[in-house]
Amino acid sequence: MSSSLKERIRIADVFSKNNGEKVLIAGWIEAVRIIGGVIFIVLRDRSGKVQAVIKKNIDEKLFNEASELGSEDVVAIKGEVKEAKTSLGDREIVVEKLYTISRATKPVPIVPEDWEKININVRLDWRFLDLRATRNRLIFVVTDEAVNALREFYRSNGFIEVFTPKIVSEATEGGAEVFPVIYFDKPAFLAQSPQLYKQMMMAAGFERVFEVGPAYRAEKHHTNRHLTEYESVDIEMSFIDSHEDVMKMVENAVIYSIKKVNEKYGSYIKQYFPRIPEIPSNVPRITLREAHKLLENKGFKQPDPNDLDTEGERLLGEIMEKEYGSQLFFVTEYSWLYRPFYTMKKPEEPSLTRSFDLIYRGTEIVSGSQREHRADVLENQIKEKGLNVKNFEFFIKFFRYGMPPHGGAGLGLERLVQMMLGLKNIREVRLLPRDPERLSP
Amino acid sequence: MSSSLKERIRIADVFSKNNGEKVLIAGWIEAVRIIGGVIFIVLRDRSGKVQAVIKKNIDEKLFNEASELGSEDVVAIKGEVKEAKTSLGDREIVVEKLYTISRATKPVPIVPEDWEKININVRLDWRFLDLRATRNRLIFVVTDEAVNALREFYRSNGFIEVFTPKIVSEATEGGAEVFPVIYFDKPAFLAQSPQLYKQMMMAAGFERVFEVGPAYRAEKHHTNRHLTEYESVDIEMSFIDSHEDVMKMVENAVIYSIKKVNEKYGSYIKQYFPRIPEIPSNVPRITLREAHKLLENKGFKQPDPNDLDTEGERLLGEIMEKEYGSQLFFVTEYSWLYRPFYTMKKPEEPSLTRSFDLIYRGTEIVSGSQREHRADVLENQIKEKGLNVKNFEFFIKFFRYGMPPHGGAGLGLERLVQMMLGLKNIREVRLLPRDPERLSP
Repeated sequence: MSSSLKERIRIADVFSKNNGEKVLIAGWIEAVRIIGGVIFIVLRDRSGKVQAVIKKNIDEKLFNEASELGSEDVVAIKGEVKEAKTSLGDREIVVEKLYTISRATKPVPIVPEDWEKININVRLDWRFLDLRATRNRLIFVVTDEAVNALREFYRSNGFIEVFTPKIVSEATEGGAEVFPVIYFDKPAFLAQSPQLYKQMMMAAGFERVFEVGPAYRAEKHHTNRHLTEYESVDIEMSFIDSHEDVMKMVENAVIYSIKKVNEKYGSYIKQYFPRIPEIPSNVPRITLREAHKLLENKGFKQPDPNDLDTEGERLLGEIMEKEYGSQLFFVTEYSWLYRPFYTMKKPEEPSLTRSFDLIYRGTEIVSGSQREHRADVLENQIKEKGLNVKNFEFFIKFFRYGMPPHGGAGLGLERLVQMMLGLKNIREVRLLPRDPERLSP
Repeated sequence: MSSSLKERIRIADVFSKNNGEKVLIAGWIEAVRIIGGVIFIVLRDRSGKVQAVIKKNIDEKLFNEASELGSEDVVAIKGEVKEAKTSLGDREIVVEKLYTISRATKPVPIVPEDWEKININVRLDWRFLDLRATRNRLIFVVTDEAVNALREFYRSNGFIEVFTPKIVSEATEGGAEVFPVIYFDKPAFLAQSPQLYKQMMMAAGFERVFEVGPAYRAEKHHTNRHLTEYESVDIEMSFIDSHEDVMKMVENAVIYSIKKVNEKYGSYIKQYFPRIPEIPSNVPRITLREAHKLLENKGFKQPDPNDLDTEGERLLGEIMEKEYGSQLFFVTEYSWLYRPFYTMKKPEEPSLTRSFDLIYRGTEIVSGSQREHRADVLENQIKEKGLNVKNFEFFIKFFRYGMPPHGGAGLGLERLVQMMLGLKNIREVRLLPRDPERLSP
């Protein structure tokens, strides 16, 4: 192109320009309509859409050029802003110059704005086209804001960001559901969580750390809320009195994140998604035992008295929203049976733990606990879980040279945003989801 | 402990307390000395160190209790702030109550503050102790600030943060140096960089994205500047005129990061590291050809006229600092021979490319370019590099349905901080480094 793109303005900014101003805009063509001697182009960039107009009787060469264009071609347009009544707003562009940057092969396999009619698998196969739909891109703009708010909150509370290894020599949580990696001639795995390393940083005296990084679960789940690769927002903090200190921190972080998203994108969310995220005025806490009772009172008996299943969480979400007025609540004191070995037991009742889940709109988004920081007790807990102490020697070592009381939590970023926007399928919240059947693109 | 840790104050804050104030502090014991009837304890938390004093003739029980304590034990201390002249400052704590939280097994394998005398491999084996040294922890506090500044800068320039897959089905850059992953029954790899996905996001119309995430190189390098797992800060931007737009963005981001680190930690860096990072007033740009000439003028002939080797970079760093007064400079127009297939060629001289490296204190910290956005040209370039076009069909697809001109860059976070602080070994800048020989802890 002969013109520099430096002069380019965002399409959204066209609507605050005065009649007669000259602008350069660039983006993708969403539609071209030719009505008699007039061509109407809808041009889209990430900020918005505008109508551009070319009249044959004013510039025939330009008209002919434009009549060759089609959907998803990338062009730059120089033109004059004109007041007009269009479905996209009160301005349009009278085209003076047209620069064709990149043509799209026809037919384009999917029409972005038709996403609702397209199977999610086809959408993911053509993800780069799918994401051209305003609503679909908005999910990632919201994710950016949500995660930035979490970081901002934790940093302002004295946490520092760390980056721990994702290639590890042991299965972090002791389970078998890990992806093997061939590390030169050594066996290795992808980390299920930064758990043991976060705790190591407590041993190192960092006191407060957070990490935003990928976590891997080689679980053959085929659900709408599981991914094999997801973004985990983890924290760990030292010198706590109990898990309640961790809960308070997480609660405030999540509320801050919801607030920031609402402030910045509330009006867009309203336009494109079923519900805007409400800001909870308080986040109730109930024990697992109380949760079971609430469910029973409504006629739902949990199959396992020590657990809360997916359906239980969902129903509990409904009950809590109706009766406590909160979409966000904690369930505490999970059974030792189903919590990982590093969880601290409830001292007065050691079949339970100093643990919690944060449930948002019926889905667990955070899991956390106070950790057992006494080396000898920890070693016993590893044995009690039927794990091989030898495999955890490297970990127990952290606890032998002075370890403060500490606790932490992990938040699933995609789930947080999924619940904020009220989305059914978590795959929509991951740019390029990985699940047992999907490894590309 | 019978006292809540909520009252705890940071040790650094002790020094602004008045004589006679009561405080609760907690941390690790760095040293215990008994001199006659007085015990001196140096207590360390992440904010600083303070001396605590116990006199036998005032509280014999407390004295006996404290005489059992040793290095790296974790304790909480309640006491009275007293004006005093100590090597740690003008305050000390007269202990009134002592809470032993966690005892360290004796002997402690390494003394944190002795790090300089300890082999790097031993330090890494005992990383959680090694990081208790103020200087070593400071590296990660600086890293936190450096990366946060980069994010802040990019976000304020309209970039949104994305998270792309690290498990991929193709070797991203076409090379062979990838770690294989067993993904259920499918072959997969760890991503060498988010390159192809960043470009996909340009096809998706995101226009400006950045990512901070792990990158993997299965290279058997045994150097002081290579890791097999590192943190890559990547950007990609659309509607550029040339790679110069990318360079300007990266230049400002890196300067912003150096500035923020200096503002916040300059005085600490001065105390603990050889050089404080200087803020460059301008970042010179020289072509590879000019770089070779500069080296030749000093009597250093590069072995390969199309390349710049590690030693060449180092020497160029010295020349540029002496003659141009800048520790930070760009080398541009690298040879097409040594740039990846997706790099745009220099239109007037297609044996060269629209590419650049940013060199900081003699080490490449950023590499970037304008990308070839014309599908047909891109396909030819893949062939020219001897790669199998079929393996890149998924990628070429992104370019067939409207692709704006775009470019981007990747920055090695550990290298940036390594150079900021003037460190010899990059392993010091990674909490838990991975190299061909090291997979744990």
